[in-house]
Amino acid sequence: MPERVELAQNAAGRSVPTMVNGKPQIPYIGVGKYQPRGRKQAPPIRSNKDYPDSGDKRVPDLETALRNCGLHDGMVISNHHHLRDGDRVALMMLEAAARIGVKDLMWFPSASFPSQQSAIALMERGVIHHIEGSMNGPLGDYCTQGKMRGMGVLRSHGGRWQAIQDGEVHIDIAVIAAPTADTFGDADGSHGKSACGSLGFALADSMYADHVIVVTDNLVPFPCIPWQIQGNNVDAVVEVESIGDPAKIVSGTTQITRSPDRLRIAEFVARFLRDAGIMKNGFSFQAGAGGIALAFVDYLRRMMKEDGVKARFVRGGSTKYLVDLLQEGLTDYILDGQTFDLDAVKSIAGDPRHVPTSPFTSYNYHGKGSFASMVDAVVLGATEVDVNFNGNVVTHSDGRLLHGIGGWQNCLAAGCTILAVPSFRDRIPVIVDEVTTLTGPGELIDVVVTERGIAINPLRKDLLDAVKGSKLPIRPIQDIKAEVERICGGKPTRPKLGDRPVAVVKWVDGTVLDTVWQVSA
Amino acid sequence: MPERVELAQNAAGRSVPTMVNGKPQIPYIGVGKYQPRGRKQAPPIRSNKDYPDSGDKRVPDLETALRNCGLHDGMVISNHHHLRDGDRVALMMLEAAARIGVKDLMWFPSASFPSQQSAIALMERGVIHHIEGSMNGPLGDYCTQGKMRGMGVLRSHGGRWQAIQDGEVHIDIAVIAAPTADTFGDADGSHGKSACGSLGFALADSMYADHVIVVTDNLVPFPCIPWQIQGNNVDAVVEVESIGDPAKIVSGTTQITRSPDRLRIAEFVARFLRDAGIMKNGFSFQAGAGGIALAFVDYLRRMMKEDGVKARFVRGGSTKYLVDLLQEGLTDYILDGQTFDLDAVKSIAGDPRHVPTSPFTSYNYHGKGSFASMVDAVVLGATEVDVNFNGNVVTHSDGRLLHGIGGWQNCLAAGCTILAVPSFRDRIPVIVDEVTTLTGPGELIDVVVTERGIAINPLRKDLLDAVKGSKLPIRPIQDIKAEVERICGGKPTRPKLGDRPVAVVKWVDGTVLDTVWQVSA
Repeated sequence: MPERVELAQNAAGRSVPTMVNGKPQIPYIGVGKYQPRGRKQAPPIRSNKDYPDSGDKRVPDLETALRNCGLHDGMVISNHHHLRDGDRVALMMLEAAARIGVKDLMWFPSASFPSQQSAIALMERGVIHHIEGSMNGPLGDYCTQGKMRGMGVLRSHGGRWQAIQDGEVHIDIAVIAAPTADTFGDADGSHGKSACGSLGFALADSMYADHVIVVTDNLVPFPCIPWQIQGNNVDAVVEVESIGDPAKIVSGTTQITRSPDRLRIAEFVARFLRDAGIMKNGFSFQAGAGGIALAFVDYLRRMMKEDGVKARFVRGGSTKYLVDLLQEGLTDYILDGQTFDLDAVKSIAGDPRHVPTSPFTSYNYHGKGSFASMVDAVVLGATEVDVNFNGNVVTHSDGRLLHGIGGWQNCLAAGCTILAVPSFRDRIPVIVDEVTTLTGPGELIDVVVTERGIAINPLRKDLLDAVKGSKLPIRPIQDIKAEVERICGGKPTRPKLGDRPVAVVKWVDGTVLDTVWQVSA
Repeated sequence: MPERVELAQNAAGRSVPTMVNGKPQIPYIGVGKYQPRGRKQAPPIRSNKDYPDSGDKRVPDLETALRNCGLHDGMVISNHHHLRDGDRVALMMLEAAARIGVKDLMWFPSASFPSQQSAIALMERGVIHHIEGSMNGPLGDYCTQGKMRGMGVLRSHGGRWQAIQDGEVHIDIAVIAAPTADTFGDADGSHGKSACGSLGFALADSMYADHVIVVTDNLVPFPCIPWQIQGNNVDAVVEVESIGDPAKIVSGTTQITRSPDRLRIAEFVARFLRDAGIMKNGFSFQAGAGGIALAFVDYLRRMMKEDGVKARFVRGGSTKYLVDLLQEGLTDYILDGQTFDLDAVKSIAGDPRHVPTSPFTSYNYHGKGSFASMVDAVVLGATEVDVNFNGNVVTHSDGRLLHGIGGWQNCLAAGCTILAVPSFRDRIPVIVDEVTTLTGPGELIDVVVTERGIAINPLRKDLLDAVKGSKLPIRPIQDIKAEVERICGGKPTRPKLGDRPVAVVKWVDGTVLDTVWQVSA
């Protein structure tokens, strides 16, 4: 609760706590500056003698599995979020823990969702001490109000892998929702009634946790093929009626935006890639699943066809629109981190060119390179971007924490990072003097595309040169900002932030990039 | 060299050194008795900042790569043996090390082969101090003659993973021959002119070594799909003209035995599986690539068809004969540890039901179970088996070390372990009073099948009962032995063993099962 927290100013000029949840922190020292030392973490050595020869690790229910794994007060328990807002397993786990009677757990999901807001009651009852992981919606709001006992720690997908691998977070028990699994614990996300595609977010948990429990609603005879999670890392398998609500796991309704402004943004982005010479044979790009991103992919697809250009690979979050590219021969591969709609799930289940990836291969900054920096262009969103091209994706301008980082920070390593954002939302400008919460340093953000024009980071002279002579509305970011402020009647109102940190934003190397401050409800 | 070595008697009554290559050893204490403690090993934490953003890790040659990885005296350097007797990369690596001028390396291949016998010259010159790993043929012979400076350490495939994982062997630099790779280091064994199928033996090296170098003769643009080896673990990529001799990588001529005696053995084994009720819907088996094993698969295939029986999975070493089962719908899956012929390479490259495995999934005894114990029946060879069903696969009755263990020890965990052996070879009986070198404890060996009859381990009353009334020639092992000794004119001559240990045989849990003693040439 209101303990005194020492603060330090980091290299981005942000004031950050030097201690978070009892652990000393390193303030951010700049992009590519922090030098990690030592060896990766590793789980305990086990012996086959303590596991059934038959390979059958089933136990009757999750409560039994948690007891067998020695669940006790203060442990760290984790889940993945591939089932998104349809997930039932995380709450099943937390409620089983509550029945067992343990207290002060640290819940470590790869992300939490509005459907899991009953976790708030478990925090009030003392079962959960705090959450480290993305908090989308109500849980983020609860945290911003200063009601959580510990501090929230926001990490990117790659940062979560880095934190586990480097030993910053030690998972005692991982509970993995599996759309298909065998009794040995081999698990696959791309088949079964609750199919969600890739299970990459659970991979670190399966490899590093002391104990691993697989929960499935589609048990198949050994071997479960493909095995995205290896049973050799799994202690127990629990069969349940349902791991999630398929309608919310994949929406099936991921739609291209119909807003003329947003379509304009999407078209600008596609044209920018073409006119800057990035769209060429063998290139690669990544775009998410928002309405603008989908529209962008559709525009780009048409331009690629017109110009006879083929990508070597595209990165998901995958949707129907990426699958179309694959099937039309416009890309050799989809390298997929998460699978968003039914077309994408079907594709990853059956097409060997649609390849599941993990935060290790894609994003882990503390590896021997990662895919992120090999992507030619990435198209991202943001809640705010400032005149120095710094980006915010976690808080709104009112200071409320409502979103996770996802792979956003990791993607900034791409050859050309584009923020595709409307210039204002609900009459609040998106381009600001200084972002409320720094999530990505401006030196890594190359282009801001709005419906009113395209701003190129002055650091990227090469890009400014590349589009010289193009018909695109290239403008200084200050110009766009001024125009938007005229329309909206001024800058956004600054939030009344308290002086109590309620969460921190980690950078991809584990250092502390910024602080989320308490906001009174 | 002739240092004094302390010996201890282990639980199998074998005299074993308590110190091997400067490291204290635990004598074998029985099957399923040793309790490992502590955590697994892990490689150093790296940072993307120290690797090229483009992902291109190519260096001009292997010598440069080894220098960049800081190769120096006394290091441990490793290779895999999926290219078998056709491999060119291991010698390329050792010769590059010799040119650099380092001394006293420990060479840690997953197995060494006759074509690598020039490693003997490198031992004589002091470049290699000793070899830990299977030594097939001349290198084993060299070791047995006491000429190697350090002791040989023989481990099973699973035992090699266990030793790396548990920190008994720390690999400084792994050099991985890759039939296909991209510039980032992602590597695949199933495509390219030097295709060898699975790369599972190199997986531990790629995950645990401090430095990893991929050597390929088929560089493809990123991403190399599938990636059996992940570039995120790789430091450098070297392109060479040829990683091996395709004719010796896969023989293309793996043939069923034509010997009437051996065909008889193969048929007995198949009939045994049928009559004992092991061959039933959903069952599983593993057989290697020897002439008897191949003939066995062919007999079994016919019986399966006759009886309308389908296996759930079969385990390779894969060959045409297993691929036939898959293609005829007689098994759902091949779980493949190594790929022996061209038909199998083609199958694993294109059929998602033909799945590459690793020693981690298949064999590692210090995991949360492994596939080995889930296999219903395994058919193995042996150089000797004794009246207590103990098996030997590494030495001949003359005491010479000529073979590695392969997955043999690990396979003993199967539901029914069958040694299919001729009762004598070159007029030397195979069934003996006591095996020269204990490689597998008799309590794990269930059935010995020879052309003169089938001996069932008295511990397996269930199997004795199961085949009661069958027409199979079930006989006590002593009876078969006595008959063979009459034919061969007595027991094998006991070798004149020295009192100097030249190698040890590890058990699957890392304890020392037996010793190989110096034999004068």
